[in-house]
Amino acid sequence: MTAADAAAGLARLQRRDTRLDSYVDRYAARTHGMTASAIRALFAVANRPEVVSLAGGMPNISDLPLDVVGSVLNELVVSDGRRAMQYGSGQGEPVLREAICEVMKLEGITAHPDDVTVTVGSQQGLDLVTRLFCDPGDVVLCEAPSYVGALGVFRAYQAEVVHVAMDEHGLLPGALAEALAALKTAGKKAKFLYTIPNFQNPAGISQPLERRTEILRVAEEGDLLVVEDNPYGLLGFDGDPVPAMRSLDAERVVYLGSFSKTFAPGFRVGWVLAPHAVREKLVLAQESATLCPPTFSQFAVASYLHNHDWRGQIKLFREMYRERRDAMLAGLADHMPAGTSWTVPGGGFFVWVTLPPGLDSHAMLPRAVTARVAYVPGTGFYADGLGSRHMRLSYCFPTPERIIEGTRRLGEVMQYETDVLATFGTMVESGSPTDRLYESPGTNQR
Amino acid sequence: MTAADAAAGLARLQRRDTRLDSYVDRYAARTHGMTASAIRALFAVANRPEVVSLAGGMPNISDLPLDVVGSVLNELVVSDGRRAMQYGSGQGEPVLREAICEVMKLEGITAHPDDVTVTVGSQQGLDLVTRLFCDPGDVVLCEAPSYVGALGVFRAYQAEVVHVAMDEHGLLPGALAEALAALKTAGKKAKFLYTIPNFQNPAGISQPLERRTEILRVAEEGDLLVVEDNPYGLLGFDGDPVPAMRSLDAERVVYLGSFSKTFAPGFRVGWVLAPHAVREKLVLAQESATLCPPTFSQFAVASYLHNHDWRGQIKLFREMYRERRDAMLAGLADHMPAGTSWTVPGGGFFVWVTLPPGLDSHAMLPRAVTARVAYVPGTGFYADGLGSRHMRLSYCFPTPERIIEGTRRLGEVMQYETDVLATFGTMVESGSPTDRLYESPGTNQR
Repeated sequence: MTAADAAAGLARLQRRDTRLDSYVDRYAARTHGMTASAIRALFAVANRPEVVSLAGGMPNISDLPLDVVGSVLNELVVSDGRRAMQYGSGQGEPVLREAICEVMKLEGITAHPDDVTVTVGSQQGLDLVTRLFCDPGDVVLCEAPSYVGALGVFRAYQAEVVHVAMDEHGLLPGALAEALAALKTAGKKAKFLYTIPNFQNPAGISQPLERRTEILRVAEEGDLLVVEDNPYGLLGFDGDPVPAMRSLDAERVVYLGSFSKTFAPGFRVGWVLAPHAVREKLVLAQESATLCPPTFSQFAVASYLHNHDWRGQIKLFREMYRERRDAMLAGLADHMPAGTSWTVPGGGFFVWVTLPPGLDSHAMLPRAVTARVAYVPGTGFYADGLGSRHMRLSYCFPTPERIIEGTRRLGEVMQYETDVLATFGTMVESGSPTDRLYESPGTNQR
Repeated sequence: MTAADAAAGLARLQRRDTRLDSYVDRYAARTHGMTASAIRALFAVANRPEVVSLAGGMPNISDLPLDVVGSVLNELVVSDGRRAMQYGSGQGEPVLREAICEVMKLEGITAHPDDVTVTVGSQQGLDLVTRLFCDPGDVVLCEAPSYVGALGVFRAYQAEVVHVAMDEHGLLPGALAEALAALKTAGKKAKFLYTIPNFQNPAGISQPLERRTEILRVAEEGDLLVVEDNPYGLLGFDGDPVPAMRSLDAERVVYLGSFSKTFAPGFRVGWVLAPHAVREKLVLAQESATLCPPTFSQFAVASYLHNHDWRGQIKLFREMYRERRDAMLAGLADHMPAGTSWTVPGGGFFVWVTLPPGLDSHAMLPRAVTARVAYVPGTGFYADGLGSRHMRLSYCFPTPERIIEGTRRLGEVMQYETDVLATFGTMVESGSPTDRLYESPGTNQR
């Protein structure tokens, strides 16, 4: 299959699947809203070796010491296999929950293992939290843009997403207060604010401490629960981590954590730290969803943490990602056409790019894949159809050389689109609607 | 903690938790129905060594060759760790889905790996299937009694459970047809029938082939989808497995499978085999719920199947469980008071006991735990509050000696209750309501 074939396949995947489904009359209302995301279609075509994928959010785990992990797991099975391979607690294994509290201390969180519920990655944490709180039609507040996987969860529970604008320091407290006031006027109440304070997915932006305090003050005034999603917090490139929102308010914040980026995602071990009453409900929801999260995965992670210098390993990851971030910023500076801007992440995996006026990231994607580079169009990160002037680029997985080559290919595609636009006129209404409704978090530009 | 303390603790747990929950006004409607089950409360007290637990459904994995599993996992990490510890496919890894099709062949199922979706145990399979099909108020048909964990899932999705009577050959086709007719009269339609055809949990009863055919015929006439849950199918004590319902009708049956009882539950690997259109929706639901099922678990199970004589291992499991089943039947015959009846399982883990008239299994439980024996009261297996004259006994985990000792202790408690009843009069209305509404599947008695 050539890249052009792949691009044609992608375009087909993007069209609505019209095959006959004889079960269509039987589905629940929520199921009719389930459609394959652009990211999902992408994975089918962007994983071929000739394509530089700046699309995926896969961590680069090639630095993990496989011999250490292998012997740790062998030892686990031989010495404690009958427990590690058995059903376990619906809340998660105590030995792991204790270790999780140690990990959270690095971001200023003081917590008791009793208040931790282990989940199948933090994705399931978000799924269970949404299950507990959201009836159909309930409002969830999210950053604009926000994590595509979170928007999918809110959609699956038929919640209504209301986006709140960001600037280069993250979610705007004033915009949050306005959103709360507008909801009040409309007779609605938000069930919670979903926010990623560190190295946000997709914007790559972080909230400084003062911003977190301001957001929590607005939340308190509006009696708003905050769901803090923090997969990347320990992957900052500069200085110590900023204290987690949970460290500032233990009763208002439900915290989602994950080992997917600090160890490995394949074990699917995440967690929720929640106030006691919520934690009790979470465990019941977990038992209903899975009986218990994977016992073996939990013992595996706990054994890894016990037998390996995991703090040193995270440092290695940080340095590796910093080098990739630098490559991406250099590549963007060299290759983006005039009128493009982008964020400068201080950690994590992502850069958020704002295209020159007139370009449409969704329409451009098949042409980019034909040119052997892939990204995620911005539209996936908005629940309201905006985002076509943006794209998410990830630097987590490819090598620095490939990242620079990817930005070069992408720059060529964008330059071509810009030239076509100049010759044949605007392809979309001047200025994307995104610009009219949300602040753009872009801070660097050409 | 003494057994008496534990029993008092259990009684406390059974009372409604009245602590203040400051989040109570924020929960979704479904969350208000989530309460700790009797089984859950039991686990807290029945796991102490002096109690013979005939309550849990934990498989006995002590015969697994830990050295083999340990070295298989070590080899997996060293040779393929970067793939096995990475994010994977939302549908599940192809190598495992192929192996799953081999396993299903043993019960007459011909299936393509494309139609398999891997889940976090078959519990998550049921959760996702219910998510796809059930709006609040939708009807699900279930055997009476049915698996407590399934009833919990249906409750979590606010579905209405309608029980269908069984006899010693399982679900009664006539009762199913009547239930469908009654629903039609009421202007309702069942979303699906949930059934466990092999060694049913909790009744220990199996449907012969003719019964399966009859049930499927009624389902076809009523345009009813069938969800076949089959965790125990390969653990039969007599002859070859009966062909799965899925092998008789590939378009009407959604099949749930699991490695929890044929290998080990701690990896949490189950699967759903579903018609293509449903499978597509399942994968989207899985991505929303977890991004992907645990990759490492999947590679671990696939490597185990590839490197070990898993068919021979299942034979060992079968012999071990048969010995325990025999011990339980012998213990019941020796120790149950007159007026007790029970089922004779041909495989699986459970015996369903019908108590002498006037006894209440729920009320008796704290006294049983004080006498150092635990079981699950029948009420957990009915969505409509019935079941107090029944209890589920499991023989899967304790040794044969402990099983016999457990039935002895239980017999003493029941005899004491019967004597108290004879002295002080009936404790409940004569005859349990269960008997009036459902056939009793009890076939053996004293």
